[in-house]
Amino acid sequence: MLTAARIIQEALRTGKTALSEHDSKRLLSAYGLPVVRETLVRDPGKARAAAAELGYPVALKACDAGLTHKTEHGLVELDIAGAAQLDRATTRLRSRAPAGAGLLLQEMVPGRRELIVGLLRDPGLGPVVMLGLGGIFAEVLADVSFRLAPLTAADTADMANELAGSKLLGPVRGMPAVDREALAAWLIGIGEIGLQHPEIQQLDVNPLIVRDGQHAGQLVAVDALIVLAPEAVPGAETESVRHDRPTRITGPTARVRREQAPLPVARGSLEPLFAPRSIAVIGASATPGKAGYEVLRNLEAQGYTGTVHPVNPRGGEILGRRVIAAIADLPAGVDLAVIVLPASSTPQAVRELGRRGVKAVILAAGGFAEAGDSGLALQTELEQAIQEAGVRALGPNTAGHVSTPSRCATSFFSLGQVRRGPVSYIAQTGNFATHTLRYILTSEHFGVARVVGVGNKIDIDESEVLEYLAADPETQVICAYLESLRQPRRFLEAARAVTPHKPLVMLKGGATAAGAQAAAAHTAALATDDRVLDGVLRQAGVVRIHEYSQLITAAKGLASMPLPQGNRVGFAAPSGGMLVCLSDLCRRDLNLEVPELAETTRQRLQDLSPPLVRLRNPVDIWPAVSQHGLERAYGEATEALLGDPNTDAVVIILMLVEQTGFPCLEFLVELAGRQADKPLYVSCSGDQPLMAAAKAYLEPRGVPTFSRIEEPFRVLDIAWRCRQAQLRAGQEQPRSRATTRELQ
Amino acid sequence: MLTAARIIQEALRTGKTALSEHDSKRLLSAYGLPVVRETLVRDPGKARAAAAELGYPVALKACDAGLTHKTEHGLVELDIAGAAQLDRATTRLRSRAPAGAGLLLQEMVPGRRELIVGLLRDPGLGPVVMLGLGGIFAEVLADVSFRLAPLTAADTADMANELAGSKLLGPVRGMPAVDREALAAWLIGIGEIGLQHPEIQQLDVNPLIVRDGQHAGQLVAVDALIVLAPEAVPGAETESVRHDRPTRITGPTARVRREQAPLPVARGSLEPLFAPRSIAVIGASATPGKAGYEVLRNLEAQGYTGTVHPVNPRGGEILGRRVIAAIADLPAGVDLAVIVLPASSTPQAVRELGRRGVKAVILAAGGFAEAGDSGLALQTELEQAIQEAGVRALGPNTAGHVSTPSRCATSFFSLGQVRRGPVSYIAQTGNFATHTLRYILTSEHFGVARVVGVGNKIDIDESEVLEYLAADPETQVICAYLESLRQPRRFLEAARAVTPHKPLVMLKGGATAAGAQAAAAHTAALATDDRVLDGVLRQAGVVRIHEYSQLITAAKGLASMPLPQGNRVGFAAPSGGMLVCLSDLCRRDLNLEVPELAETTRQRLQDLSPPLVRLRNPVDIWPAVSQHGLERAYGEATEALLGDPNTDAVVIILMLVEQTGFPCLEFLVELAGRQADKPLYVSCSGDQPLMAAAKAYLEPRGVPTFSRIEEPFRVLDIAWRCRQAQLRAGQEQPRSRATTRELQ
Repeated sequence: MLTAARIIQEALRTGKTALSEHDSKRLLSAYGLPVVRETLVRDPGKARAAAAELGYPVALKACDAGLTHKTEHGLVELDIAGAAQLDRATTRLRSRAPAGAGLLLQEMVPGRRELIVGLLRDPGLGPVVMLGLGGIFAEVLADVSFRLAPLTAADTADMANELAGSKLLGPVRGMPAVDREALAAWLIGIGEIGLQHPEIQQLDVNPLIVRDGQHAGQLVAVDALIVLAPEAVPGAETESVRHDRPTRITGPTARVRREQAPLPVARGSLEPLFAPRSIAVIGASATPGKAGYEVLRNLEAQGYTGTVHPVNPRGGEILGRRVIAAIADLPAGVDLAVIVLPASSTPQAVRELGRRGVKAVILAAGGFAEAGDSGLALQTELEQAIQEAGVRALGPNTAGHVSTPSRCATSFFSLGQVRRGPVSYIAQTGNFATHTLRYILTSEHFGVARVVGVGNKIDIDESEVLEYLAADPETQVICAYLESLRQPRRFLEAARAVTPHKPLVMLKGGATAAGAQAAAAHTAALATDDRVLDGVLRQAGVVRIHEYSQLITAAKGLASMPLPQGNRVGFAAPSGGMLVCLSDLCRRDLNLEVPELAETTRQRLQDLSPPLVRLRNPVDIWPAVSQHGLERAYGEATEALLGDPNTDAVVIILMLVEQTGFPCLEFLVELAGRQADKPLYVSCSGDQPLMAAAKAYLEPRGVPTFSRIEEPFRVLDIAWRCRQAQLRAGQEQPRSRATTRELQ
Repeated sequence: MLTAARIIQEALRTGKTALSEHDSKRLLSAYGLPVVRETLVRDPGKARAAAAELGYPVALKACDAGLTHKTEHGLVELDIAGAAQLDRATTRLRSRAPAGAGLLLQEMVPGRRELIVGLLRDPGLGPVVMLGLGGIFAEVLADVSFRLAPLTAADTADMANELAGSKLLGPVRGMPAVDREALAAWLIGIGEIGLQHPEIQQLDVNPLIVRDGQHAGQLVAVDALIVLAPEAVPGAETESVRHDRPTRITGPTARVRREQAPLPVARGSLEPLFAPRSIAVIGASATPGKAGYEVLRNLEAQGYTGTVHPVNPRGGEILGRRVIAAIADLPAGVDLAVIVLPASSTPQAVRELGRRGVKAVILAAGGFAEAGDSGLALQTELEQAIQEAGVRALGPNTAGHVSTPSRCATSFFSLGQVRRGPVSYIAQTGNFATHTLRYILTSEHFGVARVVGVGNKIDIDESEVLEYLAADPETQVICAYLESLRQPRRFLEAARAVTPHKPLVMLKGGATAAGAQAAAAHTAALATDDRVLDGVLRQAGVVRIHEYSQLITAAKGLASMPLPQGNRVGFAAPSGGMLVCLSDLCRRDLNLEVPELAETTRQRLQDLSPPLVRLRNPVDIWPAVSQHGLERAYGEATEALLGDPNTDAVVIILMLVEQTGFPCLEFLVELAGRQADKPLYVSCSGDQPLMAAAKAYLEPRGVPTFSRIEEPFRVLDIAWRCRQAQLRAGQEQPRSRATTRELQ
């Protein structure tokens, strides 16, 4: 936009760091965005003439670049009804306004609803657009939503629907609905402005009035503020985060950074990590419990079929393998080296490995950037060594990785054999290659494909791993635990590409740590890292969760069952009380419906039950169990619920007690297989040993069980959100249960 | 108040069902509540004179009893600036207003913040007071809170703090804080009005303006509406609920019912139920699996020491006891009879038992009111039988009860021996005398005192049971699952009396089912059953939960550990990632703080750890475990955290894996005993069998464990809310751990 560029350049040329209200609105106008009618006036005479043209009542404001919080400073006069009042206002404002400020005369726009829209430029994310309810409630309730530019019309609809007070946008209290197309034009337009003008650091339209009266529902900007970056610093995208303060939002003094297009990474480049043909262990040890021993034992436990080279100056033999004394003695063509030396020796080892042509290294040692100043210096040295060596590097400060299709596990923590399966983990914690993986192996029955602890991300980071997993045929479900995003925009683009095909569930650690900046613009003040992240993750189809335990329960549900086609859940439990509580849960906390059943289904359930009890969804199964026994009652109910056209998913809560004995549960496996397009989740009530037995029987046969009766519903809600991400992307590609089963 | 009573009587005498705006405000004024200055005027001349006295700008409204939604009907003119404008407004309103309506001339009160306060009369609860944010946001966001009248000043402060937008009441955007004393006076005053005038059905003050300018922060009523009940129906308090629609809120057409003072129930009256010296089982059976057999077997399994009389016309012997052929043949002085006959035979049996002098009956049969019309008739017959017989009755439609101190269990579901302990359950579901109790017995280690399934509550209801448990020395923790309250006010009064001494945790089933009534007054429109219940339960010190599973996890935590003195939790986990997620959980979802430790504690933890890692709360225990082994690292950390003056509770997440072996966990038991004023909760990560072993070791020794790492924090949050209820009641009586341990 030529006009817009000219306005910005003129301001920068004269050393301004912000546009005046009038210039801000001129810029918006240049993009076709409706602003209030207004005129810059210099004296009372001009003001009167302009007011006569606009028609009373009018508003008068001081206007200058950098003037903010005008109301608080008494620089705004509203509802001026006539010429005499206008004269007085002109005199007052001229006496109060800073030297050189102009006066801005505006029409009063009738409207009881106020929105706020805005833009901020995050160094990692680039331009981010905000929508919120305006006025006093923007600040008090912080009811706002964010999306990355460029925005689609669907994004703008999502933003509106996410607001807690979204009802205010509909017809309410005799006022018509906000024109949704006009709102979309505003949000898309602001995103465009941000993309086209990297000098714009922050942009506020506050208030954006929803018109009453004529053109009711239309939107018009009454005040606007555009903050410029005096020096737009070009340069490569850098990590926008500190270790504990991720997705850093630009404060008022931050500089613009140019966003970098994602590096085109050849998938092959991570192959030495995930499918190494040979592995060297630098710092191998013969002492059980030591890291250099456990890595070797883990490789052995997986039945790794490539060549393994233990390296240790002492030589000898470990776990039946000859130890090589020095890196220099390694044969050529080693794909991957696991370095379990102390931090201080690691850079030198990397250099030597580079010389031997090793392609990738895993750096287990801690004590680098995460350990403060001394570690930072060491990490810089390590970075140089990696660049010199030309190797790909995972870590440092990583517990290692797992790649079951290659029978490979490089953790320094004794794992035993890791089950192969469709779930991959990207984690900014070592847990998924240590004790949490042990939990999964000893308590659950699903398997994993790739597990990567990204550690300090000196080279390989979550974005590149995500790109690898997107193309990885072994990976069907991706779970991520991340505390920061090294290349936020690249991660989101990778996520946007993968989520139409594979669910991506993410727990973001440190969600509450960061607050918003004190800032001239409201948008920046409202943009806490967490709120922005919430919006941009949803936009990319990432399903955000908030509990660590759900990284396991969700993985189980998603690994063994298809995603539901909708959110209607049929369920059965041996207790009216449970049915009531679980229905409450679906409606109160989750986005699940408990639908009416088709009449034929209802009748079938009715026939199963004593006549006095009227059966419906959810199904009180107790009377039928009393009459027909566990297997018949649950079997018929499960079949009926799964077969009903009104259900998208089924949850069965089994009653298992000594008194009635342990039933044959084959029917659940059989029915799940027959109705392969609907997820079937199971939970239990009753005797703990029988519940454990049901889990041990059902899970290896593909039917997931959950130990708390609320869990299947929480996981279904996650699964439905994954499915919605697919639907939003317009690509209906439900995974069939068969696919994931074949992998197990 | 004489004036108020006169205004009401005058309105009722002339057949009105509501007071006019002016009369409504006169009534408020009579209670010293500030209202806008206003005058009723009849003609333009009077209007001008009044306006001159009030000072422009003024507002003019049509005024008549029953006139509502005046703005929507064009019956309000605001911001009238002068005499000419006033004349036009007078003319317009007179042409639009209904015949006989007056005109109300008011000063315009400057104020940008609007509140809504109100009253509604619930047939079960009596007068309930509401506070909300006013204006458009009251309806859209429904940001309101409720309390039962009479209110204390502390109640009014709680109401204000509960609002999502409570910040609006503080100093905000250059506006001063709302005068909290004035707000308290309004809310307490409205409660008084409700208590003193049973004819008032609904009362709205909307808006209650927060003044700007002079007297900024003061509150003044600008509009008010009082709805009267044309016929105030005196009478006994009746059940205010249907089976599935509890705590019925008065709709606009409902009639006033006079609240009944709680019946003074002698504790002795439930003694035959909880401490029966002899029990008859009517419908005894020799067939295992049949209800009439299982009741006898449960009594035997408890080692019941009183006399048991099986009754069955077939005679013979069951489980070694001689069967009596008919009720008429029972010896005199039987305390309790468990009737397991079909519904249709139950009333007759009750009558016969009454004749034999039996004091209490348990009615197992279903098929009464819960089964529709046919059942309703049967229930009426049963009610008559109970009155005739003069017995106390539990049920019908109950799975029975448990009273471990009397070695008594009357469930028809095979339970085995029930562990004695400090937890009592009141349940509107049979689960706690059937499969959920089996879960507690087979999976958990805490014990129960009394369990009551109240069923259809034909006689004994939750309120009376709660009163019994309040005085019961065996009961230290009360958990309730209820779908309705039969005598809501009595229940809340009992709760208010018990919660300063014993925690009462309640899950209310059916929370989402009921919507608010369409109503003339906004207060009634905003008063969904659930919102009202939320407020009145909190007021009574009841801690409301929303998950069925927490009825078990919370019971476990509360049974074995003291309540925390504050909300500061120190914790340790073997993973930085877990620490981050759990800190997020504390801050985001729970009301728990993660405090800084005292420097001596921090230094002690630091000494335990490699120098590179800076230790603080929460504690990353992994490095110390690597260096010193599990027992020393966890032992020192637990002792340090428990001993720190900045912590009120401690959570330890153990890492248990095959590699490091199963540690001796005695230190946890020992440390918990030494620091008996702070709760210590444990969770685990790692190998499932070792986690089960830790549970099996720790829980019988009084240290509760939780299978998900989030659970100890969720339970601590519940415990802290229980403690807050005690603090609010101003009665600091923390239970010592010793007391509850002695009972186990």
